[in-house]
Amino acid sequence: MARPFLTFLSDFGDTAPATCRGVIWSILPEALINDLTHGSRQFGIRDAAFLLWSSVPYQPVGVHLAVVDPGVGTERRPIAIQAARGDHLVGPDNGLLMPAAERLGGIVAAHALDNRALWRAEAVSETFHGRDIFAPVAAHIAAGTPIAEAGNQIDPDGLVPLRFPEPVVADGALHTSVLFIDAFGNCRLAGQPADLASLRQRLHPDDRFSVRIGESSLDVPWQPTFGAVAPGELLLYEDADYAGLAIGVNQGSAAARLGLVHDAPVVIEPA
Amino acid sequence: MARPFLTFLSDFGDTAPATCRGVIWSILPEALINDLTHGSRQFGIRDAAFLLWSSVPYQPVGVHLAVVDPGVGTERRPIAIQAARGDHLVGPDNGLLMPAAERLGGIVAAHALDNRALWRAEAVSETFHGRDIFAPVAAHIAAGTPIAEAGNQIDPDGLVPLRFPEPVVADGALHTSVLFIDAFGNCRLAGQPADLASLRQRLHPDDRFSVRIGESSLDVPWQPTFGAVAPGELLLYEDADYAGLAIGVNQGSAAARLGLVHDAPVVIEPA
Amino acid sequence: MARPFLTFLSDFGDTAPATCRGVIWSILPEALINDLTHGSRQFGIRDAAFLLWSSVPYQPVGVHLAVVDPGVGTERRPIAIQAARGDHLVGPDNGLLMPAAERLGGIVAAHALDNRALWRAEAVSETFHGRDIFAPVAAHIAAGTPIAEAGNQIDPDGLVPLRFPEPVVADGALHTSVLFIDAFGNCRLAGQPADLASLRQRLHPDDRFSVRIGESSLDVPWQPTFGAVAPGELLLYEDADYAGLAIGVNQGSAAARLGLVHDAPVVIEPA
Repeated sequence: MARPFLTFLSDFGDTAPATCRGVIWSILPEALINDLTHGSRQFGIRDAAFLLWSSVPYQPVGVHLAVVDPGVGTERRPIAIQAARGDHLVGPDNGLLMPAAERLGGIVAAHALDNRALWRAEAVSETFHGRDIFAPVAAHIAAGTPIAEAGNQIDPDGLVPLRFPEPVVADGALHTSVLFIDAFGNCRLAGQPADLASLRQRLHPDDRFSVRIGESSLDVPWQPTFGAVAPGELLLYEDADYAGLAIGVNQGSAAARLGLVHDAPVVIEPA
Repeated sequence: MARPFLTFLSDFGDTAPATCRGVIWSILPEALINDLTHGSRQFGIRDAAFLLWSSVPYQPVGVHLAVVDPGVGTERRPIAIQAARGDHLVGPDNGLLMPAAERLGGIVAAHALDNRALWRAEAVSETFHGRDIFAPVAAHIAAGTPIAEAGNQIDPDGLVPLRFPEPVVADGALHTSVLFIDAFGNCRLAGQPADLASLRQRLHPDDRFSVRIGESSLDVPWQPTFGAVAPGELLLYEDADYAGLAIGVNQGSAAARLGLVHDAPVVIEPA
Repeated sequence: MARPFLTFLSDFGDTAPATCRGVIWSILPEALINDLTHGSRQFGIRDAAFLLWSSVPYQPVGVHLAVVDPGVGTERRPIAIQAARGDHLVGPDNGLLMPAAERLGGIVAAHALDNRALWRAEAVSETFHGRDIFAPVAAHIAAGTPIAEAGNQIDPDGLVPLRFPEPVVADGALHTSVLFIDAFGNCRLAGQPADLASLRQRLHPDDRFSVRIGESSLDVPWQPTFGAVAPGELLLYEDADYAGLAIGVNQGSAAARLGLVHDAPVVIEPA
């Protein structure tokens, strides 16, 4: 029988992720924990939601613990969600879990974590719910405790939503924006290659596009992969890791080259 | 039966932590290893001692391997300590292990690691005792080798001590200093909320304090959690991760805002 | 029986390493994975090859997955190599695996990964072969699938080679260069202590050398370990982690002090 499987994503530094893992292993010594990342942008709920959304389809069915929680200790609810694929997601009700839950088939049930019997036995802090509430509840659910025991059921429609920006195709151009910048400096744009294809009824390697960022306009080819352009050259491509349209530089950083930041508007039209 | 459990903390970069884990798993393939952090400030013994102290209470009973060792290859002794909770700590005798040992109930026994039979079988280097001495000894102890076999017993009073700075309450003010700066820029100060409470016979949310740093003086509220102040605002709070008094900024860095560095003096009085 | 053991090295950021681990654990839930590092210099094949070479001797026999792959999606082949020690190496045919394979006893067999039955079952991307080809093939080999089933055998002589720079001893001087800079700023130079010893028929602590870098010349002692010189002082020493000659600073960064970068020429002669 497989070991109970958890993933863990946070914006925590120092020993905080290890402290949470220690809490999990204290409850469930046989747990297998896959740290998705703890380098998620601090306080960046959308970034973390995007990273969680991007990685969960490749993970075994399990419990996905995610904590980027600038509202810790305030009225925002701690929650657990059951998704249609069979996974559970545990974290704050601030939108963080929503895109991943949708990608795992949608929400089957949602519960507030108000059953203190599943929290850490000792006093619960007001600034580290990752350790005191989310990690122990995730461990108990991974150990087989039904989600219904975590606390009162809540209507999924009442959960805090989170929507990624959407592109607009209008006047022969794709009006999009920077959704996420990865560690290489590749910029995942809102939208899909199909949005680009819709501008010219096709999308083939070497098709060229005019990319407008602020005052400047660049001529950039659509290519299947980085190596199709020379090192240092720009390309538009389908990002496999982040499942959508992206702009990158072969062996370089598109974000640095183009001065792109989150939500920067980008307009693309056939060149 | 639970798998043998180890934690591992160092200031190592690159593949060095993985090389040490490889040594452990070569000796004890069933070991479960929780990397506390390897981003501890390089050569910073007090920082590492503080992080170890902060995380061990939340870890299962096991062997805690910690290596921040600017004296590697010199006369400083490699040691193993048995703590009252049942844990063992393995690392250099430079103070690093002492606060954690105390937090785990105090030292029951201490041994020098002079039994070469527990070291790595091949030649032992003078610059990487993490790999050649500490990791293999930790693996053997986790596998059940009694600490007494690690080498000669030593008097705990002869171990290199390490004391965190202590605050002073005098003339109606708390005279403290920066003990540790976390990855968010929160500054853990020497002392506890009770030290602050002693200045006004109570400590309630919204109580205001004057915080003097260098030439400047700031008015800062005591609050239970970050979200009680607006984003970008300062607060004094009880840091749950680091078990004591701290100054922070909601969704920002207090260290950057206030120009705080380790050991910077901070004077706090009722406003 | 020991769990199947894998190591994993890449230059991936964000959730990409965790996504690959998720793919491995989906195929082989009992796999033990040791992340060697994912902080290898981006696109730096030689750095990654050096780190892999430095760490594999200390790892249990297993499958070593390594992906630094600027040529992803181009004609470069995905390969698996069987080494004499019993290990397998999986990654791109760009030289990355070659020094490690040699250090594990040399190449016994090499296969192109053209058997799509071992790839990820879903569509295979052109930009993330780590997830779609390398990780699943590594998992299958760790699960016991013979390397011959991974694809057509290829002549090891036809693999892309990678050679580390070699020093030259001439005119009473060692002409070397910076091979690798570690996270402390220690600079591993091409060559071995024996190359230095050949200049004066011996090599003892406190032996002094003149180290020429660009226009400047420094007097530096050979020492067994960092603590043999004062904090902030330079030393030549044998780097245990990286198995060769190195220049460092006690509790400091030699790279920062000396302005050293990869491949910077360094000339050393007896002082």
